[in-house]
Amino acid sequence: MTPTTRRQAEALDAKDPLRDLRDAFDLPADMIYLDGNSLGPPPRCALQRLENVAQREWKDGLIRSWNDARWIDLPKRCGAKIARLIGAAENDVIVCDTVSINIFKLAAALLARRQGALACEADEFPTDGYILQGLSRLAGTPLQHLPAGAPEDAFKSGAGLLVKSAVHYRTAAVADIAAWERAAAKTGAAIIWDLSHATGLIDLDLENAGARYAVGCGYKFLNGGPGAPAFVYAAEKEAAELLQPLCGWMGHAAPFDFANDYRPAAGVNRFACGTPPILSLSALDAALDIFDGVDMAAVENKARALGDLFLARASAFGLESPSPGPGERRGGHVALQLCEGYAVIQALIAQGVIGDFRAPDLMRFGFSPLYIRFADLWDAAEKLKTILDTEEWRNPAYGRKGKVT
Amino acid sequence: MTPTTRRQAEALDAKDPLRDLRDAFDLPADMIYLDGNSLGPPPRCALQRLENVAQREWKDGLIRSWNDARWIDLPKRCGAKIARLIGAAENDVIVCDTVSINIFKLAAALLARRQGALACEADEFPTDGYILQGLSRLAGTPLQHLPAGAPEDAFKSGAGLLVKSAVHYRTAAVADIAAWERAAAKTGAAIIWDLSHATGLIDLDLENAGARYAVGCGYKFLNGGPGAPAFVYAAEKEAAELLQPLCGWMGHAAPFDFANDYRPAAGVNRFACGTPPILSLSALDAALDIFDGVDMAAVENKARALGDLFLARASAFGLESPSPGPGERRGGHVALQLCEGYAVIQALIAQGVIGDFRAPDLMRFGFSPLYIRFADLWDAAEKLKTILDTEEWRNPAYGRKGKVT
Repeated sequence: MTPTTRRQAEALDAKDPLRDLRDAFDLPADMIYLDGNSLGPPPRCALQRLENVAQREWKDGLIRSWNDARWIDLPKRCGAKIARLIGAAENDVIVCDTVSINIFKLAAALLARRQGALACEADEFPTDGYILQGLSRLAGTPLQHLPAGAPEDAFKSGAGLLVKSAVHYRTAAVADIAAWERAAAKTGAAIIWDLSHATGLIDLDLENAGARYAVGCGYKFLNGGPGAPAFVYAAEKEAAELLQPLCGWMGHAAPFDFANDYRPAAGVNRFACGTPPILSLSALDAALDIFDGVDMAAVENKARALGDLFLARASAFGLESPSPGPGERRGGHVALQLCEGYAVIQALIAQGVIGDFRAPDLMRFGFSPLYIRFADLWDAAEKLKTILDTEEWRNPAYGRKGKVT
Repeated sequence: MTPTTRRQAEALDAKDPLRDLRDAFDLPADMIYLDGNSLGPPPRCALQRLENVAQREWKDGLIRSWNDARWIDLPKRCGAKIARLIGAAENDVIVCDTVSINIFKLAAALLARRQGALACEADEFPTDGYILQGLSRLAGTPLQHLPAGAPEDAFKSGAGLLVKSAVHYRTAAVADIAAWERAAAKTGAAIIWDLSHATGLIDLDLENAGARYAVGCGYKFLNGGPGAPAFVYAAEKEAAELLQPLCGWMGHAAPFDFANDYRPAAGVNRFACGTPPILSLSALDAALDIFDGVDMAAVENKARALGDLFLARASAFGLESPSPGPGERRGGHVALQLCEGYAVIQALIAQGVIGDFRAPDLMRFGFSPLYIRFADLWDAAEKLKTILDTEEWRNPAYGRKGKVT
């Protein structure tokens, strides 16, 4: 039952099986943070780890920490923690570089082995399309921008390699990964899943859904810190056949042999490239520990219930949303459509409710089930209602200026 | 005059114009750290900045810090600090990704505009060659491994694009950048300079030497932290013509328009790709401040004098070196050749002298002029002599096992 009073929202919090996870964070007082889909807040353990890495591993250990603090295999250890969250074998994920760069690596490696165009949907997160544009120009392979549609239509016009988000960055619509994989299999096409808005939120089961390639982001629902490194998933059987072009020394089978010829490391480890940013990587690695023993189905269910509550309140105020409706499968945010959205978001921020805005008219509100309570969303919605009722957003202080994120 | 007694070494320290810079570091007591060419130690200001970024910008500021703490333009601000150290215009350098990835970006962008093979020297740092191998395979352009030799010979067999280190990672030999650029200009070839072992150490003057493209490392002599982000330099006039294939959203002219078509940012800023690792990047940015007002000619001169001292001592003990000899231009390390090098380095580490080993037989000793004293090198050389005289390295504890860096 979606709450219709604050008391009902509090009751849901009281019986929430995830409620103790909030204590893992030290959130600012007097703030309701609804932007964890863009940048997750720091878990306490990540801040402690960062201090330890800086003060002990770097300052005292210096170069010896590559061995003594096991920096050298941190990308794999961190990948194994992510693997559990996405339904992959623990050796099939490695943390490295950025989502953009990892899409390039996977797409370029797959391109060498199949026919057909590169493709992404026209309203895909832009960097995914930009990267495919760059690869298309370099490799001389055409690029298709597909209309959003059903899986069975996507591969009809010759797409051989599709990059697709598992959770859409604007609407939070969730793709049926297994259905897309079945459609791709019919034409021999491959799909690279962009899990940026899905990992740490949706109960993913990639291996069983037939997904073989994916990338994802460390700084949203994984709470790894601003610009935390990204990850690559490649199923073992496939990875052994892939030669990615960003073949840096950290992806070499024996990097410290300093051999002249590149010999790719086993499996997904060949997707490592240069020396990883250990400070940022360590914060992510520590942040992942709060998922230990957490049931991802419970996380996804709570995200959906939180979204149901916020959508119900917004609907009661007359706001419209392009996000999946109450009860439907949905990611960890909802979007509300409003011409004055930019100013409304600024007015909310001034009152301690942090959401974000995506041009031209979408307000996005994200809720990580690890630290957002039903009562928080109730209160945020009440503040939104007041701003709309009083037309507080007309205050010139909330006018359009250089907000960038 | 190269010191021949410890007292003379102390006298050089007393009149060293850079001697106060050591106070910017909090080096472990009872250790002589001769591996800053591999991983620089943390400047105190970098540790403070990292704490501030974690505790205030991330924890309290959250998403707002992209604007309020100016994370969004940190790659450019950090690049401007590096520009001064390499003799580039302040807008011509951006910090992003890794050396390996940045070589790929520059080489792929240049490939589209010129004839001829990709090339690097056969004994170049391996990752540079690996990346060219990957690009060669993807773009169908041949790759040449050239013998080390004179600039005028390098472009005779059709090399159109050469990647070359300004300071060699094993020997510390320094390339004559202007001479190489003159030789390249004769055939219309381009050179991408790998400044990994040069930046923050050699008195570089890229613009005046005619160098237009370079990459470099943040974690060696720049002391930016383990795996600190790297940088790209592209001279403004050239950058405007370059389309690099890793065209992620941070290199877009207007990333937050979320437009479907990639439109490259002005100048070198188009070499940005995905979201930068802010924790690691902030540490680098702070570390660069210790170079404020520092005369790079004085830094290079002290490095050479330190190397002269260490080579003179090593020569007195009968050790041979492939590094440039006393008085010659040289980077911030010297290599000593010895079959038993691996065990000797382990024995030195056990006594608090940290150097490193490069297979098959090179001991490397690095000395950043910012914190290494002449007396430190005297003492390190004495410990080396004792280990050789007593054959302490025969201790089985120092036998060959999994050292990786």
